Amino acid sequence: MNCYAGIDLGGTFIKCGIVDEKGNILVKDQIPTEKDRPYEEIAANMANLVKALAARANISQNELKAVGIGAPGTIDSKNGVIVYSNNIDWKDVPLGPAISKKLDLPVFITNDANAAALGESFAGAAKKYAGSIFITLGTGVGGGIVIDHTLFEGNRSAGAEIGHMVIRAGGEKCTCGRKGCFEAYASATALIRQTKAAMMKHPESELWKICPNIENVNGKTAFDGLAAGDKTAEKVIKNYIGWLAEGIANLANVFRPNAIVLGGGVCAAGDTLLTPLKRKVNRLLYGGTKYAPVKLMIAQLGNDAGLVGAAHLAQQNLL
Amino acid sequence: MNCYAGIDLGGTFIKCGIVDEKGNILVKDQIPTEKDRPYEEIAANMANLVKALAARANISQNELKAVGIGAPGTIDSKNGVIVYSNNIDWKDVPLGPAISKKLDLPVFITNDANAAALGESFAGAAKKYAGSIFITLGTGVGGGIVIDHTLFEGNRSAGAEIGHMVIRAGGEKCTCGRKGCFEAYASATALIRQTKAAMMKHPESELWKICPNIENVNGKTAFDGLAAGDKTAEKVIKNYIGWLAEGIANLANVFRPNAIVLGGGVCAAGDTLLTPLKRKVNRLLYGGTKYAPVKLMIAQLGNDAGLVGAAHLAQQNLL
Repeated sequence: MNCYAGIDLGGTFIKCGIVDEKGNILVKDQIPTEKDRPYEEIAANMANLVKALAARANISQNELKAVGIGAPGTIDSKNGVIVYSNNIDWKDVPLGPAISKKLDLPVFITNDANAAALGESFAGAAKKYAGSIFITLGTGVGGGIVIDHTLFEGNRSAGAEIGHMVIRAGGEKCTCGRKGCFEAYASATALIRQTKAAMMKHPESELWKICPNIENVNGKTAFDGLAAGDKTAEKVIKNYIGWLAEGIANLANVFRPNAIVLGGGVCAAGDTLLTPLKRKVNRLLYGGTKYAPVKLMIAQLGNDAGLVGAAHLAQQNLL
Repeated sequence: MNCYAGIDLGGTFIKCGIVDEKGNILVKDQIPTEKDRPYEEIAANMANLVKALAARANISQNELKAVGIGAPGTIDSKNGVIVYSNNIDWKDVPLGPAISKKLDLPVFITNDANAAALGESFAGAAKKYAGSIFITLGTGVGGGIVIDHTLFEGNRSAGAEIGHMVIRAGGEKCTCGRKGCFEAYASATALIRQTKAAMMKHPESELWKICPNIENVNGKTAFDGLAAGDKTAEKVIKNYIGWLAEGIANLANVFRPNAIVLGGGVCAAGDTLLTPLKRKVNRLLYGGTKYAPVKLMIAQLGNDAGLVGAAHLAQQNLL
């Protein structure tokens, strides 16, 4: 049976799994990244983890065909180079070749959000569809674009920066320098900022009972307030879903994917988020929902999406 | 020599050309659409025009390999059906099969803006690049997306609606029903509206000398005012270029094409438009311009882009 190692490289952990051709994880584990070490050491740890897991799964050297990696930052996929990573503080690191040499296997790298997108496309929420967009709502808004079952990365893999599409020109300042980016309105960070602002404006809100210290507001606070029937929380969520719908509808009108998959902490809200969001997005779709509907769904693979997608990237690239 | 017929079907004229494998137009002509007739008549005229032009170019039946059509509206490319066209008032018209039967040749159809995008990509401004986006600034904002030298159309060809990406949520009302679309800020129609509004606010503006009857304002008026040194016109153009830059940067960050090609009447302004626009777009590119620059250029094929692209679509589909 052909297998592929999938690695999800983060600033804190290196997660790795041995994945079969259907996207099933046979075995997985993680080790700390300890990112301040020389990259050669990290690459050696990654290679050893692959070997150890292959052994643990009883996979022979012959059955393990290739390694895929999802890594944070700007990736030169063609050459396997981490061009720039803020998370790990790397610049022009030839990670692909380094691991390939140690394992004597082909290694393929993409951005971590792209890997997660491919994972959800191949074995997760969007597996029935040829075209899907994965949007992760976390500290920022990241994402990946799958066209015809394959990642679309743009020139030098610099595309798919869906968080940095302006939805309100001149609006909230974004970390990228633009004003009004999707990320500045729809990330968990943005939701937290919006919740805090509403609390400051509404001292009568129940949100103060749910979270007496405003510094502790998180992406769940406003949803908790909504569940408790608080009007201020209701408005925060309504507006947040409105911004989210604008960005999603933009992507839908430009790419017209079959499905859009949402991931990240905010999605823990489930149908409380999804039901009104679907309604709003459907109203904004160009040409309506009848001719070419766009399914909106929540990610299924959770933290495994990245390594499953990375393994599938390796599988696709070998074909 | 293999040749392809390219047809640009509009509400007023049917333009047709016989195009060689390199994108050279051997012969071209146009006839009135007379759109209120039954579609069978129009299809017959289109087929006859192809035959007549092939004869005029001394192309044998054997050399003419296929027909490509760029048509306005929502096109089901796979089945050659005009699903809906506002311009010609058609609904579910099987134009491809109708013409194919008359000529005994394969027929391929796409949206007119897609055809123009493919034309500029294959034989026009973007011919050196694998990935390009064509944006036409006219009554609306249309466009086409070329990835790896091939049209990207989205599910059921319903994608690439780049004019209907919101850049200022809650802003100007768009014909599509959304508020704040790129089209509502960056079309020639929008520029005219912006010019008129500035004139109403500034009775002292030179624009009133250039265009004493405000009803006659067109997409050139503000550029004429700028050339005459008028401050109001300068501000209109500056703001217009600002909106245009936001939409272009959105597409650049999401697709990261090698090139973005601008077409439509507004582009007659040439470098007066292009030079400041490049500066603004470059400032908004995610990750800057060094790693993966995006060339901004003005279309080269003019009114021929559609038929050249349609012919190339036929050529690609036969391969």
